[in-house]
Amino acid sequence: MTTDARGSSDAPIDDFYAVIPAGGAGTRLWPVSRSRSPKFLHDLTGSGRTLLQATVDRLTPLTGSAGVVLVTGDHHVAAARTQVPELREDAILAEPSPRDSMAAIGLAAAVLQQRHGDVVIGAFAADQVLSGQAAFEQAVREAVAAARAGYFVTVGIAASRPSTAFGYVRSGASLGVEGAPTAMHARGFTEKPDAETAREYLRSGEYRWNAGMFIVRTSVLLGHLAEQRPELHDGLREIAAAWDTEDRARVVADVWPGLERIAIDHAVAEPVAATGGVAVVPGTFGWDDVGDFNSLAALLPSADDGGSKVLGDPSDVIRVDSAGSVVVPAAGRLVAVLGLDDVVVVDTPDALLVTTRARAQQVKSVVDAVRARGLDELL
Amino acid sequence: MTTDARGSSDAPIDDFYAVIPAGGAGTRLWPVSRSRSPKFLHDLTGSGRTLLQATVDRLTPLTGSAGVVLVTGDHHVAAARTQVPELREDAILAEPSPRDSMAAIGLAAAVLQQRHGDVVIGAFAADQVLSGQAAFEQAVREAVAAARAGYFVTVGIAASRPSTAFGYVRSGASLGVEGAPTAMHARGFTEKPDAETAREYLRSGEYRWNAGMFIVRTSVLLGHLAEQRPELHDGLREIAAAWDTEDRARVVADVWPGLERIAIDHAVAEPVAATGGVAVVPGTFGWDDVGDFNSLAALLPSADDGGSKVLGDPSDVIRVDSAGSVVVPAAGRLVAVLGLDDVVVVDTPDALLVTTRARAQQVKSVVDAVRARGLDELL
Repeated sequence: MTTDARGSSDAPIDDFYAVIPAGGAGTRLWPVSRSRSPKFLHDLTGSGRTLLQATVDRLTPLTGSAGVVLVTGDHHVAAARTQVPELREDAILAEPSPRDSMAAIGLAAAVLQQRHGDVVIGAFAADQVLSGQAAFEQAVREAVAAARAGYFVTVGIAASRPSTAFGYVRSGASLGVEGAPTAMHARGFTEKPDAETAREYLRSGEYRWNAGMFIVRTSVLLGHLAEQRPELHDGLREIAAAWDTEDRARVVADVWPGLERIAIDHAVAEPVAATGGVAVVPGTFGWDDVGDFNSLAALLPSADDGGSKVLGDPSDVIRVDSAGSVVVPAAGRLVAVLGLDDVVVVDTPDALLVTTRARAQQVKSVVDAVRARGLDELL
Repeated sequence: MTTDARGSSDAPIDDFYAVIPAGGAGTRLWPVSRSRSPKFLHDLTGSGRTLLQATVDRLTPLTGSAGVVLVTGDHHVAAARTQVPELREDAILAEPSPRDSMAAIGLAAAVLQQRHGDVVIGAFAADQVLSGQAAFEQAVREAVAAARAGYFVTVGIAASRPSTAFGYVRSGASLGVEGAPTAMHARGFTEKPDAETAREYLRSGEYRWNAGMFIVRTSVLLGHLAEQRPELHDGLREIAAAWDTEDRARVVADVWPGLERIAIDHAVAEPVAATGGVAVVPGTFGWDDVGDFNSLAALLPSADDGGSKVLGDPSDVIRVDSAGSVVVPAAGRLVAVLGLDDVVVVDTPDALLVTTRARAQQVKSVVDAVRARGLDELL
């Protein structure tokens, strides 16, 4: 296999489709991320590509250009078409209302099975940042091999610190599937741990960050769903059957609003792990979910010797005696910071946030206060 | 003597003129204060009146409506006329370029002597905030009495804390002048002291803050100036002689640029104090020079229980876990502060400053950085 300049092999995987569930408000990234313009529509790394564009870019080499499917809210479809015009019209599945990740990924699985028969899908969130394309592709190729053998496969990222912001997946014995030499049985998932538990996880060597990537055959996923959540399964099947017909609008309007809101983790991954049906493939690529302005900072190059970071034009920022600051000058104005270390300043045309890197995870409390003031146009 | 609702007596002082030197960039209040719109043109207390307007308001009861003279840069004349339309046209003296306070006050003294003969003038900076109108008027009335007896009179504010931001005046024996029962000889002036010296000043009871108010007969001031700085004196006399004639523009253009730049403190007050010619009248009114955003904070009402202050519309500010903050929402945008105590956020349409109350005196370093970037339009 040959690789191109960015580390992609040149051979897409047969009968493999990527599903990108693009939802989530990215509340902790307010006021950059808004309900009408959420996180995945923004370039948060200064790369020149939005998170959605970068996600499509990294998946296309694995699927071919016709193999990427986006599932997003219908009010984001226009922006998505503008950002990723290479997606075919029928490759964007519009949700009339948010029903969490099981409905989004299940809908894509059912529609793809309807269109292509029993294929392997990989679900990859639209708002993550990865580095190391070759390692990513290698992990997905192993995951697909394990999925073909019937497993519900996740990718577990080697934890570089005892993060309390991520969920973890615990690995067990080697899977022993051809084409997936590093794949292991998954012994279970855990929610975001406290700091002490996270340190124990790191010491044990058995826990990896759950990157929220799920690779599975459509028939396997829908089979698990039929067992675990039969009503949700039946509703999605009914919608999928009508999707590429003139009945779509009517059936979606009838069925979608009644679908259960549940994450794929709870609906399928956790119960199936308990009965041995989940595998984990170690991911050795760089990964971050860019959950807040502090994690965003880790992805930006330093703007000065003090480790300050700028998302935007560095010439819009003046720092005096301020180390480790994170500044987003998104309003075209000069931002001057004097005598504050580790401060976060996010400047947009209609709202300004000033906080600290340590408090970055609590930006939701500001968003709650904005909502309580009735300033919904700023959310 | 009767007093009105705001504490003014109803009798202006005979042959007394107030001179308001309105210069100074107010650099430490950037980005509110700019070279084209300096501090004195702004309402910095939320009172609805700018510092210049408030200064005229407080002096008019002492001088009568025709007795206030403003000396300011010619590029501020239009704004001044708009803000204080009650000033007669010839009551605004325009300086073609800044030549510091001796030239400004000396010019007013020479012009007023030319117009009215030997009168008493009181110089009061345009960018101070006072409270206690009755106490202010009482101090000025005593100062005028001492000035009529031939003294160069200053007002010394009872120091409420060992400030290192103000100069001090040291008082000596009682003056014993009729109409000025509290006036004392001034033993000398000191520049801004270090913290330990300031504490000693406060303990001694002999030192008061030098409020930069100078009350003196025009003949006395010009006499001292002729002795101390004869060239500056002669230049100002030459300009004053031409001021109300058609020769003004020509003479000003000839003479003004060559005038020495020196503060009245150094040119007259200090040398004259050394020979016993200066008196000090204690001022018991509230006084602040609003030098920076921290001192500004002291003048604003609290916006919440945490002692936070807002100069502007409090509904433009959201604070979460942020006590003691100072926010100036002057761009009409929402300003949200999370988890930062004693932070200063000054939001204007084209520039944003984020600093702390403790660093408020060092805002000049930001202004220097802005200038070094060549962003003169923001200064």
